[in-house]
Amino acid sequence: MSLAIQLERTGHVALYQQIVEQVKDRISSHRLPPGARLPTIRQFAQELGVTRVTIQNAYNELQTGGWIEATTGRGTFVSQTMQPNAAMRLSSQQLTPDAVIGDILQINEIVGVRSMASASPDPALFPVDEFWNTLNELRHQASALVSYSSSQGDPFLRIEVANQLEERGIRVLPDDILITSGVTQSLSLITQTLCRPGDSVLVEQPTYLGALHVLKAHGVQVIGAPLDAEGPELDVLERLAIQHRPRFFYTIPSFQNPTGLCMSLARRQALLALAERHNFLLVEDDIYAPLAYDQPAPPALKALDRTGMVIHTSSFSKTFMPGLRLGYVVAPPPLHQNLLTMRRATDLCSPPLSQRMMANFLATRGLQKHLRRVLPIYRERRDALLAALQHRMPHTVTWTKPVGGFCCWLTLPRHHALSNLHQLTLQQGWAFAPGDVFLVQPSTNYHLRVCFGNQGVETIRSGIEVLGNLIRECLQRADLRNPQPSDWTPLV
Amino acid sequence: MSLAIQLERTGHVALYQQIVEQVKDRISSHRLPPGARLPTIRQFAQELGVTRVTIQNAYNELQTGGWIEATTGRGTFVSQTMQPNAAMRLSSQQLTPDAVIGDILQINEIVGVRSMASASPDPALFPVDEFWNTLNELRHQASALVSYSSSQGDPFLRIEVANQLEERGIRVLPDDILITSGVTQSLSLITQTLCRPGDSVLVEQPTYLGALHVLKAHGVQVIGAPLDAEGPELDVLERLAIQHRPRFFYTIPSFQNPTGLCMSLARRQALLALAERHNFLLVEDDIYAPLAYDQPAPPALKALDRTGMVIHTSSFSKTFMPGLRLGYVVAPPPLHQNLLTMRRATDLCSPPLSQRMMANFLATRGLQKHLRRVLPIYRERRDALLAALQHRMPHTVTWTKPVGGFCCWLTLPRHHALSNLHQLTLQQGWAFAPGDVFLVQPSTNYHLRVCFGNQGVETIRSGIEVLGNLIRECLQRADLRNPQPSDWTPLV
Repeated sequence: MSLAIQLERTGHVALYQQIVEQVKDRISSHRLPPGARLPTIRQFAQELGVTRVTIQNAYNELQTGGWIEATTGRGTFVSQTMQPNAAMRLSSQQLTPDAVIGDILQINEIVGVRSMASASPDPALFPVDEFWNTLNELRHQASALVSYSSSQGDPFLRIEVANQLEERGIRVLPDDILITSGVTQSLSLITQTLCRPGDSVLVEQPTYLGALHVLKAHGVQVIGAPLDAEGPELDVLERLAIQHRPRFFYTIPSFQNPTGLCMSLARRQALLALAERHNFLLVEDDIYAPLAYDQPAPPALKALDRTGMVIHTSSFSKTFMPGLRLGYVVAPPPLHQNLLTMRRATDLCSPPLSQRMMANFLATRGLQKHLRRVLPIYRERRDALLAALQHRMPHTVTWTKPVGGFCCWLTLPRHHALSNLHQLTLQQGWAFAPGDVFLVQPSTNYHLRVCFGNQGVETIRSGIEVLGNLIRECLQRADLRNPQPSDWTPLV
Repeated sequence: MSLAIQLERTGHVALYQQIVEQVKDRISSHRLPPGARLPTIRQFAQELGVTRVTIQNAYNELQTGGWIEATTGRGTFVSQTMQPNAAMRLSSQQLTPDAVIGDILQINEIVGVRSMASASPDPALFPVDEFWNTLNELRHQASALVSYSSSQGDPFLRIEVANQLEERGIRVLPDDILITSGVTQSLSLITQTLCRPGDSVLVEQPTYLGALHVLKAHGVQVIGAPLDAEGPELDVLERLAIQHRPRFFYTIPSFQNPTGLCMSLARRQALLALAERHNFLLVEDDIYAPLAYDQPAPPALKALDRTGMVIHTSSFSKTFMPGLRLGYVVAPPPLHQNLLTMRRATDLCSPPLSQRMMANFLATRGLQKHLRRVLPIYRERRDALLAALQHRMPHTVTWTKPVGGFCCWLTLPRHHALSNLHQLTLQQGWAFAPGDVFLVQPSTNYHLRVCFGNQGVETIRSGIEVLGNLIRECLQRADLRNPQPSDWTPLV
């Protein structure tokens, strides 16, 4: 049996990694069912024209992830413990941001499911060697770096973050920076510091589901402002600001989650003027800004801020490694002190060892080097996604054209046949994030967030093929059962 | 010039480390003033009868910490940049838990100050080699361990924590455990989940200042219940429970911070009965329990809990390394889910790499081995502290006899001359934690928390000598200025 693996020999991705991806693909699409025997290492190496070591590496990784099982003397088989049904059960809870965050974090560990639900970088592209070397250079200082440390964060890391910020046009001193465990913690500290239960906060509609969860967990009334191609619609935002007197507006101006869109410079300036006029703060989530595929992001809101209206936060979770849990927040001085006080009431401090590692990695310009390597790969994946959507989606489906970041936002007809679409994809071994949890007010359409960062081009194509076929089937089957009246009159 | 260094050649502490400690001691006591020249490596090695490598290692460490400076060709000198005055300025803020937590975390980084203010383990005793080896064994799985991970925590770590808990008499499944970044985060999650602003919570008086900060930051009304030698005074506690209907009682039953005392088994049982009778939860902070110097801690409250009244939390910050930022909480099932939801609204997850490292370290019984090595050292330090207090304190000062943990609680007369004692010690290069910040209601006395975990025996003796002399001087000087009436009549 041939597995029809196709290798890209001039590509950026290691051969063994390409094999891993495509075998997972065959398994999750059931072309390789549970219990199926895989070729021997010798056969497979011969078929693909690669070394046996390459196949061995691929099999090792598949085995570690639970996808295949090797029995000495008998051979290598697709694991019997594929768990798309477990994923189904997992996800059949209520569609709240809380539940969906839990699902997205766990789904990567479920054997037999390929996830395009998580806005994460690709672990296969992590600069693990550089990370590990930078870590090991700290060996001789280890005991000082596993003690309690400053709540504000490692001074060396704050110096490097100040340098990074300068490249984004933001001039601050290391002392103005508070290290956090990421944007989620920044938002949690900001919300606890600025809001009392019942206070209003404006967000973009749609927006990062984690932000919605933080705000709701603290009893805040969340109000969504719609987006157009250039950013939030300011006339609506102004009306909402007058009506609700919000404590702040949470925005992701550059390569927004979940749309991948970028706020124009003109809109940024107008937004700042609006915030000043109506006296609410802007909380700027800049996490995706360095992941620009067509042209650099415009200056950060904080870089344009003349009057101290902007709280700026970002992290290294999208550009480097999410599992380090390191981010930062820059706030106007009185608020900075209050955030620091709240940080001490939250978890004291971030681990000093990973902070110093990150400081040294930044100091040697490791992040820039890493981004130069991965940006073309992510751009290629974005292009592959857009081409596949064009090729596979029925004409009733539309989507954003992401210019950076990891997210694309699909808009589907609000047809009852599509109400549990993300669960149907799970049954076929594919995870996409259901759109409703990114919304404050209900939409007239269904939506999905499709992430292209952490899957290879082949996998993206397969996933979109599966999704497109499924949407078509759902709609056709529904049409057969309940034919829609064809003599409808549009409402005018 | 001889530095009168005395080496303990059969001790547990490396010779170079002993030299480091004693040189720091001479510097902070000004017997070695800024700019003083230190002996050459050859001279010093000869004087002490040790190898030159030993002296070289000691000088390297002193130089890294900023205590000494070497100028090629000129020699080695005590640093000119001693900063006790900076520490003074730092600490001259208002005496709030928030400010004092910040000071305690930062004071270790201030050159020229020896700190007995922080309830930390000794970095010189950290099992750094074992830690680093366990970490490096994860090298091949690195990319999977720097991604996003489960909010509940690494399943392997939860299995090991469940095993640890079983040794404390607590039988739970790995699924009942929520990994946190430490007890501070556990308390923050518990408070946010259980309390609304204005709700009441009972604590021990005195108690962990971090707990007071968490509770106050969330607008909770905190009420202190006094302690006797066996634990909280239950008649008072009962009266307070009836009066205030608290959401919970926060207690550190084993080797309490800041007293070092241990709640008796009988008191634990009576406390559980009381909590059940008046329907409030018990939040048990078990962080010091394994650090028992005389006899093992009695069973945890959670081990005695038949009706689900106890939330149990602990961490590896005192027994292993604080800078890992790993702890855990076990709560009755409905609350467990709410804590998990709040964790997702706080910081998503703990770093998976350090979690797996800790899991593997526990699985190989590394923690038990480490504790077997360090417990005798901490016991010796406790004994040295008690002997020094006996020897050096004026008779008006009393103190607790810690039977575990890192803390001793000093009670001083409430004499105006002692009101800024902890600042006067800072001027002499010694940090102790001011007592007021551990209290909810004001005390009729002054207090200091004296920690003996992270300083060697010699340093402890010097610190207590300095403290004793200072107290005497303050009181004498005040007596000369304002002689107390000697014909006083006791109130009966």
